[in-house]
Amino acid sequence: MAGYVSEAVIKRLPGYYRHLRELESAGVSQISSQELGRRMQLTASQIRQDINCFGGFGRQGYGYKVSELKGHIGEILGLDRKHRMIIIGAGNIGCAVANYPTFSGEGFITEAIFDSDPAKVGMKINGLIVKPDTELDEYLEKNQVDIAVIAVPAFCAQAIMDKVTAKGVSGVWNFAPTDIRPPRGVVSVNVHLSDTLQILSYKMLHQEDI
Amino acid sequence: MAGYVSEAVIKRLPGYYRHLRELESAGVSQISSQELGRRMQLTASQIRQDINCFGGFGRQGYGYKVSELKGHIGEILGLDRKHRMIIIGAGNIGCAVANYPTFSGEGFITEAIFDSDPAKVGMKINGLIVKPDTELDEYLEKNQVDIAVIAVPAFCAQAIMDKVTAKGVSGVWNFAPTDIRPPRGVVSVNVHLSDTLQILSYKMLHQEDI
Repeated sequence: MAGYVSEAVIKRLPGYYRHLRELESAGVSQISSQELGRRMQLTASQIRQDINCFGGFGRQGYGYKVSELKGHIGEILGLDRKHRMIIIGAGNIGCAVANYPTFSGEGFITEAIFDSDPAKVGMKINGLIVKPDTELDEYLEKNQVDIAVIAVPAFCAQAIMDKVTAKGVSGVWNFAPTDIRPPRGVVSVNVHLSDTLQILSYKMLHQEDI
Repeated sequence: MAGYVSEAVIKRLPGYYRHLRELESAGVSQISSQELGRRMQLTASQIRQDINCFGGFGRQGYGYKVSELKGHIGEILGLDRKHRMIIIGAGNIGCAVANYPTFSGEGFITEAIFDSDPAKVGMKINGLIVKPDTELDEYLEKNQVDIAVIAVPAFCAQAIMDKVTAKGVSGVWNFAPTDIRPPRGVVSVNVHLSDTLQILSYKMLHQEDI
């Protein structure tokens, strides 16, 4: 298994997994680093270098076995394990996560959704009834939860993070538009929808430089 | 203005902008590279290096003027311009984009939303009535549109991309869970919600290596 892997390689892993899944679905069993590079807009040598970080798959001149490499990258990403998730906030983002088509196949199982708004409590989202957030503490005491998805407004995001991590949640996927800080031993990833829109705007403005 | 700027620096720009906006709102007028680095979890020297890419702001020993630097980074990102946006797909993601609190203040103005589902046509989202997608062609002929937000299922994403870019849209922000390719001269950014969840999973699994 891999030792130190750079942040840049880690960020490319989901792209590898996605492209390999698409190739597998299309019935492709073998792929060269050139062809995989073309699809992912990376050079063949970058592809070989990345994959070597994980112990080197494929043989010179034969390329990679799609299913084997996908399986290996899936393991590195932890997609062969079950992650029990809860979603806090049943707004648009919370619903988008609850309904996202590929999560359950990758082991990310949403088991409960909470909201503070009485108008949302009781709604059914992808088979789950939205619970009142007053039940969150008790739920966390009685159930193992690996990942909490925070999809609430910015002003209450840190308080939710503090509450769920105090009750043993070890991963937080935050969509509130502010960076929140996890306590020691907890991993969090902040997603800012606006970041990719601003990058699009940058690229439109500086197209000639790219 | 900047010449060649690396992809890594470009990807950090929205984070700078967001942190500087938060500092400005909190009434902070001046910040050192050490303090900005601490907030952004970068080293002070990384901060100075990044900002030097754009012509160097701030003076040795005085740090940066928050509003000035925010304004400058906003200009680099094109946030001082108006971008006319349309959203195709009024599902959870389309609604989340239409309702996102900070976009209009950064010049990203959603002017129309389209959907193919008769049950969604006529719905009001953040003041806009959802139009039938049969009106998309005519809308694009009569109105200038800079950015199209694609928030439709994967199977029809490429067709929508082809249609809007043929009618002059120069930027595409794609949320369909597949990479779609823009024609020459068009910029697109593919957002995959699952990527950041997989990175969270990776970090939870390899926490001791990070």
